[in-house]
Amino acid sequence: MDYADQPTDCCSIARTVSITGDRWMMLILRDLSNGLRRFDELIGHLRIARDVLTRRLAALVDEGMVERRPYQQLGQRPRDEYRLTAKGRDFVPVLIALMHWGDQHLAGAAGPPVRLRHADCGAEIRLELRCAAGHELTPGRAVEREFNAAALDG
Amino acid sequence: MDYADQPTDCCSIARTVSITGDRWMMLILRDLSNGLRRFDELIGHLRIARDVLTRRLAALVDEGMVERRPYQQLGQRPRDEYRLTAKGRDFVPVLIALMHWGDQHLAGAAGPPVRLRHADCGAEIRLELRCAAGHELTPGRAVEREFNAAALDG
Repeated sequence: MDYADQPTDCCSIARTVSITGDRWMMLILRDLSNGLRRFDELIGHLRIARDVLTRRLAALVDEGMVERRPYQQLGQRPRDEYRLTAKGRDFVPVLIALMHWGDQHLAGAAGPPVRLRHADCGAEIRLELRCAAGHELTPGRAVEREFNAAALDG
Repeated sequence: MDYADQPTDCCSIARTVSITGDRWMMLILRDLSNGLRRFDELIGHLRIARDVLTRRLAALVDEGMVERRPYQQLGQRPRDEYRLTAKGRDFVPVLIALMHWGDQHLAGAAGPPVRLRHADCGAEIRLELRCAAGHELTPGRAVEREFNAAALDG
C-alpha cells in the first residue's frame, strides 16, 4: 500500500497528536513528569491561565494519562493533586525526543539548559532507534513501513 | 536548582513546541518524512485548508526544517516541492515516539496500523532510552537532571 493512500487519521501519530498535539498539553505533561503535582505549582511555573489549565488537566484525566489524588494541608480545604499514570509516564519518551531536538538545534552558546544523566552511573542519556536485532539506525534510513491492512480497514 | 525555579521557557522542550507544538505541524512533518513533497499531495492526504498549509510550510522553511526545490512538469508552470532538511530529519525521533505511544495506547483490536522494520534485517524498530555507558533505562526511573547554570542565566 502506498503511503498517500493510507488514511491520514488511521495513524498512531495522528491519534496521539489529536490528544496531546497542543503546546500546553506538552508543557503540562513535562511539568508533571518533573514532579510538579499541585494546581498552583503548575500555574506558578507555566504561567498558564487557570481555566486553560483546568480544561487541559480534565482532558488528561479523561484520557487516563493523569490521575487526581486528594490531599489536605492543615487548616485548608481538601484539594486534588495530579500525577501521571503509567499511560502518562509512557509519554515521557516523546518529551525526551522533543528535548533532544531542542538541544541539537535551539540551544544558545552556553549549550542545552539541562542534561539527563543515568542516576546509577552518571553517563548522559539519549534516545536511540534500534531494531529488535540490536542494530542502531538513523531515522529515515533503512526504515521500512509494514502496513496492517486489518487496522487500516477497521 | 529546583525544577520549579527553572524558568519554563528556558527549556529545550518549550523551545521545540513553540515551533512545532501544533497538530498540523506534526502531521505535515510526518507526511514529508514519509516522502510526500508536493503541495497538492499534502492537501490531498491531510485534507488541510490551503492557507493553513501555506502558512505552516512557510514557518518550517523559515525555521530551516524544510527546503523548497523548484520542479516543472511538462506544459505546466514551475512549482516548488518541499523536502526535509537535515534539521527536519532530526525531528523524526519525535514522530516515532508519538507513533509508539499511539501504538501502545490507542490502537484498536487489529493492532497498530503500521509497523516499522529495519530494512536490512526485517526486525521491528523501537526507540530505546540508553545512557552513554549502554544501560537501557525506563523513562522517569534512574534519570537525573543536571542544570546548566550558564544556559539558564542567559
